[in-house]
Amino acid sequence: MEASTQRPRAGATGPAGTTTGTSVSQSLSLNPTRRVKRCLRTTLLNSTTTKSKPRGTSSSSVIPSREQAELTGQRLASLGLNYDILIHSSMTRAKETATIIRKYLPGLEMMSCDLLREGAPIEPDPPVSHWKPEAMQYHEDGARIEAAFRRYIHRADLKQQNDSYEVIVCHANVIRYFVCRALQFPPEGWLRMCLNNGSITWLTIRPNGRVALRTLGDTGFMPPDKLTR
Amino acid sequence: MEASTQRPRAGATGPAGTTTGTSVSQSLSLNPTRRVKRCLRTTLLNSTTTKSKPRGTSSSSVIPSREQAELTGQRLASLGLNYDILIHSSMTRAKETATIIRKYLPGLEMMSCDLLREGAPIEPDPPVSHWKPEAMQYHEDGARIEAAFRRYIHRADLKQQNDSYEVIVCHANVIRYFVCRALQFPPEGWLRMCLNNGSITWLTIRPNGRVALRTLGDTGFMPPDKLTR
Repeated sequence: MEASTQRPRAGATGPAGTTTGTSVSQSLSLNPTRRVKRCLRTTLLNSTTTKSKPRGTSSSSVIPSREQAELTGQRLASLGLNYDILIHSSMTRAKETATIIRKYLPGLEMMSCDLLREGAPIEPDPPVSHWKPEAMQYHEDGARIEAAFRRYIHRADLKQQNDSYEVIVCHANVIRYFVCRALQFPPEGWLRMCLNNGSITWLTIRPNGRVALRTLGDTGFMPPDKLTR
Repeated sequence: MEASTQRPRAGATGPAGTTTGTSVSQSLSLNPTRRVKRCLRTTLLNSTTTKSKPRGTSSSSVIPSREQAELTGQRLASLGLNYDILIHSSMTRAKETATIIRKYLPGLEMMSCDLLREGAPIEPDPPVSHWKPEAMQYHEDGARIEAAFRRYIHRADLKQQNDSYEVIVCHANVIRYFVCRALQFPPEGWLRMCLNNGSITWLTIRPNGRVALRTLGDTGFMPPDKLTR
């Protein structure tokens, strides 16, 4: 049995008020499969989390996200896929991670995108007490992240002749929201998943719009002492 | 932000007609966290899929699931967690995988369970054309797999003093159904995910019932040429 033969359509109806984004039309008869891999970026250079603390260690023991990015790049390269493009969020930490990853994917086109910046996609259900963005943040980020979803998670283009493989380097909230939307699960459930830094999440979208989540938050390629969240 | 602070309750309302299972009562004030890892078993000894075909190779090139189980066992051991028990489906292929994994977790209690056997948990939405179990199969398997969910996916026992770690070796349909149920996503969406053989899926359940999916189908610890579905 293959989970890749699913009906959910990427780019389907989004949350109310999220009308921004690139409209994409596709054909049901197209053969190539569009696959999108997302490589989660560590928060090394973020002002509030400049370093990641490995599990079971004191805060003085740190793992630079650079090491994780190197491992992620090596893993992506080892998969031997013909990547078409590497798109990254325009935030500094995403750009740095993408640059490291690209060392292992020489010649791959790299593109920055403001839509992929980290944010508050939609008020999570259940709510959490330790993270309370302002209503305005949901209002602004929600539309932007939905726009990113519609731009990047869709079926292959009509003109496409072969399977395509895209690497998107962005952030945990964005990726989790994308997963809920792509699988047509309630988008407000995005915070029921969590992702290790540097992890790979893999979505496959078939020409008929069926979507399969092939892995979520894969970091098996990192030694356990390099794992951080 | 931590996704492990979620409200969904494991063991919540199941599909209609699935009344079997062990009732579990828990306390909201309990400290320990119950974590359940599930190690997907390959179908090496299944009569219809005795060997797994690696991606991009001819059918004459095969990877015994034994190799995958060895890698899974090594990864589980390397995580350095204090596993409490290894529970496996009573199907032959699950038992064999569990035995291999246990080599790397010496002394760990092993238990077989009929509830965890592979089956048809609930009619998938969207439907698939290539897999059409009889209505009777859903009727029987659905209640059994829901019973397995209620038995194994719940908060820590009241008497528990420390975090617990359990390894469950079972099958792709069972695991995907468990994930949907634990995250309170529509259970009929289970076939929107797919799992590599030997992969690790990790759920964390907090004392207050919040559930987090920490990884789905992690096989990053396997060389790419050992990956099969």
